[in-house]
Amino acid sequence: MRMLDIILKKKEGKTLTEEELRFFITGYVKGEIPDYQVSSLLMAICFQGMNKEEIATLTELMEYSGETIDLTSIKGIKVDKHSTGGVGDKTSMVLGPLVASCGVKLAKMSGRGLGHTGGTLDKLESIPGMSISLTKERFIDQVNKIGMSIIGQTATIVPADKKLYALRDVTGTVESIPLIASSIMSKKLASGSDTILLDVKFGSGAFMKDLDSARELARTMVEIGDSLSRDTRAILTDMNQPLGCAIGNNLEVIEAVNTLKGKGPQDLVELCVKAGAIMLEQAKVCSRSNAEELLKNKIENGEAFEKLCQFVEAQGGDISYLKNTEKFEKSRHIDKVIATKEGYVKEINALGIGEAAMKLGAGRATKEDTIDMTAGIILHKKVGDYVKKGESLCELHTNVDNYKQIVKEIEESFKLTDQKIVVPSIIYETVE
Amino acid sequence: MRMLDIILKKKEGKTLTEEELRFFITGYVKGEIPDYQVSSLLMAICFQGMNKEEIATLTELMEYSGETIDLTSIKGIKVDKHSTGGVGDKTSMVLGPLVASCGVKLAKMSGRGLGHTGGTLDKLESIPGMSISLTKERFIDQVNKIGMSIIGQTATIVPADKKLYALRDVTGTVESIPLIASSIMSKKLASGSDTILLDVKFGSGAFMKDLDSARELARTMVEIGDSLSRDTRAILTDMNQPLGCAIGNNLEVIEAVNTLKGKGPQDLVELCVKAGAIMLEQAKVCSRSNAEELLKNKIENGEAFEKLCQFVEAQGGDISYLKNTEKFEKSRHIDKVIATKEGYVKEINALGIGEAAMKLGAGRATKEDTIDMTAGIILHKKVGDYVKKGESLCELHTNVDNYKQIVKEIEESFKLTDQKIVVPSIIYETVE
Repeated sequence: MRMLDIILKKKEGKTLTEEELRFFITGYVKGEIPDYQVSSLLMAICFQGMNKEEIATLTELMEYSGETIDLTSIKGIKVDKHSTGGVGDKTSMVLGPLVASCGVKLAKMSGRGLGHTGGTLDKLESIPGMSISLTKERFIDQVNKIGMSIIGQTATIVPADKKLYALRDVTGTVESIPLIASSIMSKKLASGSDTILLDVKFGSGAFMKDLDSARELARTMVEIGDSLSRDTRAILTDMNQPLGCAIGNNLEVIEAVNTLKGKGPQDLVELCVKAGAIMLEQAKVCSRSNAEELLKNKIENGEAFEKLCQFVEAQGGDISYLKNTEKFEKSRHIDKVIATKEGYVKEINALGIGEAAMKLGAGRATKEDTIDMTAGIILHKKVGDYVKKGESLCELHTNVDNYKQIVKEIEESFKLTDQKIVVPSIIYETVE
Repeated sequence: MRMLDIILKKKEGKTLTEEELRFFITGYVKGEIPDYQVSSLLMAICFQGMNKEEIATLTELMEYSGETIDLTSIKGIKVDKHSTGGVGDKTSMVLGPLVASCGVKLAKMSGRGLGHTGGTLDKLESIPGMSISLTKERFIDQVNKIGMSIIGQTATIVPADKKLYALRDVTGTVESIPLIASSIMSKKLASGSDTILLDVKFGSGAFMKDLDSARELARTMVEIGDSLSRDTRAILTDMNQPLGCAIGNNLEVIEAVNTLKGKGPQDLVELCVKAGAIMLEQAKVCSRSNAEELLKNKIENGEAFEKLCQFVEAQGGDISYLKNTEKFEKSRHIDKVIATKEGYVKEINALGIGEAAMKLGAGRATKEDTIDMTAGIILHKKVGDYVKKGESLCELHTNVDNYKQIVKEIEESFKLTDQKIVVPSIIYETVE
């Protein structure tokens, strides 16, 4: 078998066999197939696509390209969730404790943020003392004891994806449904949970800019999960404005705490309750119709917040910061962005807000950058709100001294209109 | 400027600017852009194509990526020809002396053969003593004195094409009209002649399998030449059977000699006279209508053969082999392939014959292989001929002892039919 023939076959739009995909993946991981042949194949896949069987086969080959996590020593159904990434997305910090407080087991491996979207690991690390590297034994033990843990991906999991993703990133082959789907699903499958809930975001601040491609990605991933016998479901959620009001690491932790204490922004609460209900159904805790009531109750009675504290404490975090969020360090500059026009907020360009937050210090432009945990943006207006001239659109937090240009970019991210706006539901549809 | 953005732009089907193409070509030649980014761009070009301006710009950038040959010290109009390669294609060895005997200047750089098509250099080297590496001074001096020279491409000419071609060969990106056209034309332009005649072959034994793609390639190359102010014309020629009767190195030299002595196969003679007439017109020697008569006369009066002898002698070749072709060494095995059916020859699959000749020893499967100069095939029947059962289809020459399987492959390359066949003209059309 020759890699050249595999490239030519895909270039002609033909279906690759399991043997051919195996030759490609194992050869690439072993370093026997050079990058220049792989990037050429990846570009051909961008144009010719892959059918369901090819994608499932590719995903499974990637899943088993390295270590897979064995969670069988955790009692009960292990659930997992994954978001394709959005601005202000602190869902895992709310949803994790919320479902764990209902008795569900969540053993989650998460990633760091790059570019305009933040990563859960970075946000968690803004809590003093919090560690996201646990041994496998401690990880499993913690899930057994308190119902949840979130750690960083181990270095030995899905090496095929690590190599492929690094190559895709520099060869213009990131945007391809089969490649995105197999990348996400191979990591989720290797992480060993029984069920997977995928939060596929669409809109200006998401990786998928439109609903159609988000839906195609969601369906593709659900099909992969189904064909590999994992209960996989997806929700399509709106990212035409940031999720919730806080963007930035410790600002988002504070918002997560507030949400678990019953004072969360409406869209974030809705997302966590709806997604949580699906996860409770996947975990066979209760029916979806009963689940929402149960989840809301866990917030009201304080058990969900208590679960967050248990989780943070188990991983070394100082929970006095959660009990009194005033303790979190603040940026030197906290400044309002004032509306110069009036009208209803039609859109808050999430990409623009995400990039502005990054420039304020909240994110990384390159992998080597360090993050200012205090920096970010607090929205004072959301889509549908009426803004008067002179009112505050949002508040920026930064240690960057010269932020005038960033203020302008933030202001431009708010699109106003004369017409009243009907605010769409955060969850557009579910794919299962 | 970033290579990644150039890849993404072409992936989206947009037009690359001169600056972007320059960044790509100069960066790649300097080794600043890695192979894996270039192969990804090449695959995107295979799918999205390039417009006329992009192709012309790419060609010119490749042309000037290394040394260009200055032929201004040769008096008069310098003509050049190029064939896209076919089985039994010994045209340069006939056409070169033919037009040179009419006073035209031919300063040609040629290539070696790989796979099922032979290269002019290999064929010339089957003449004992013949050298295809001359200094630039001797090359130019020879063209000034006797009107022609054929040498190997220098190492310093069009380095961009050398690097790109090696990469395309292993990344499935060979078949792309813009890439093929710019590769051929950059070398022709850098070789410094005033006019270019392109022989674009189509059919089973050619690189272009069908007339439409051959025509597109021809038009693309003529447009490149026109936009860069070189008189460029093309002929589309039929490669649904080998050209002439001889396939194999010294066998083709013998056929070239016979053709220049007025005993050539009909298709080869027609091709050389028609192509020669275009070259004489390009060189402003005479009108195309008068040219054919002049060329035929040069064969009849022996001046064309005499020019071949001058050319070979000037490059150290032993012309006693040309004057008495019986002197050429012969293969140990010379054996007939006998028809087992009867009928009119409809097709002689040139790819099948080319590959059989390679297996008999006449060609290289890989660049490292050595060639048996004596090996090959002499066709006894051509398309249109009637074959009786038991008659000889062709004769094979080889030093390979076990050639039974090859005989079978040769026999299968002959397609017979009950119907009388109208033999098409070797030149299908001209593009100018």
